[in-house]
Amino acid sequence: MSPRGLFLTFEGIDGSGKSTQARRLAESLEAAGYDVVLTREPGGSPGAEEIRRLVLEGDPDRWSAETEILLFTAARRDHLERTIEPALNAGKIVICDRFADSTRMYQGLSRGDLRALVDQLHGLMIGREPDLTLLIDMDPEIGLSRAKGRQGTEERFEDFGPALQKRMRSGFLALADEFKNRFRVIDGNRDVDSVAVDVRETVLKVLR
Amino acid sequence: MSPRGLFLTFEGIDGSGKSTQARRLAESLEAAGYDVVLTREPGGSPGAEEIRRLVLEGDPDRWSAETEILLFTAARRDHLERTIEPALNAGKIVICDRFADSTRMYQGLSRGDLRALVDQLHGLMIGREPDLTLLIDMDPEIGLSRAKGRQGTEERFEDFGPALQKRMRSGFLALADEFKNRFRVIDGNRDVDSVAVDVRETVLKVLR
Repeated sequence: MSPRGLFLTFEGIDGSGKSTQARRLAESLEAAGYDVVLTREPGGSPGAEEIRRLVLEGDPDRWSAETEILLFTAARRDHLERTIEPALNAGKIVICDRFADSTRMYQGLSRGDLRALVDQLHGLMIGREPDLTLLIDMDPEIGLSRAKGRQGTEERFEDFGPALQKRMRSGFLALADEFKNRFRVIDGNRDVDSVAVDVRETVLKVLR
Repeated sequence: MSPRGLFLTFEGIDGSGKSTQARRLAESLEAAGYDVVLTREPGGSPGAEEIRRLVLEGDPDRWSAETEILLFTAARRDHLERTIEPALNAGKIVICDRFADSTRMYQGLSRGDLRALVDQLHGLMIGREPDLTLLIDMDPEIGLSRAKGRQGTEERFEDFGPALQKRMRSGFLALADEFKNRFRVIDGNRDVDSVAVDVRETVLKVLR
């Protein structure tokens, strides 16, 4: 019997700092002697990265919301089989920047009322939920200005404007309330170091 | 109100001659004045053709059966939205070389007992069944030697050997029995012209 690892995810609107916090947490846990795998979605395994490119490159309207949900679910299935499950089965801590909650929000909420479909597909093909989800909650005005300050070619999910970002923030907070047991809401409207301390303390409490 | 078209699919083991018969039927219906769209799966729309390449190129084991089913379903959803439904809504006859029945067989039967999963996913994300499915039934020994005589880089689905091809043939016949209302079994163990006459007569009976 191998020890069972811990599956942590970071969620939040674009520019909330979750990728930075995921990396900081990984470094801090590794320094404390834990075996950590830092990964992200969409992507996180060679096949899933290919699907990521298929979805994120090219015209944003080339796929319908339903086809996009299927492609993200295919990528997630591959990521889960090839990266996440093997690491958990080896007793490692998996830190994932975005997971199914992002699909619940970005496809389920932003592009028509597809939340029920996202949930049914998740139940059928993925099943797994994280052990702990850290929602980096942030004022969308701050998040947007941060996201715009970044370079990158995959801009499409960051191009929704303030009104949608506000809906997304409320949506994530409602999701945290829906899945109380695994969600922890972290105040992201502070300097990076203060948020990182809060994140680390929250995770260490669960690990102990 | 636009007239409603007719959705015809061809199914059968590799080398059964279904692609030739699909083309012959399209030519013959066009000659008789019908408006016909000839298409195929996987693929059949620009997006679905990209997904086809993702699945069929590279190592055959790079995707698990479940991920492959998700990718084929994403391709089918795109094909349905962009090619099949618009043509049917314009009153055209759509002739498709392989559709969901091939997924029921090749993924559902050949790679573990995934038929139930294939059906649930189909119900959730596709829904539509053809109005008429022509199963070109053929002795696998003949089919295999025909398939091997062809050139092509997408060999993976034709590389299963005689034992599996026999299971596939039985599987397709069982499927024809399961969906009696829309399936017609055509004896493919004859010269191409005789089979084409049989196919055309069967379809014209439905069209009249």
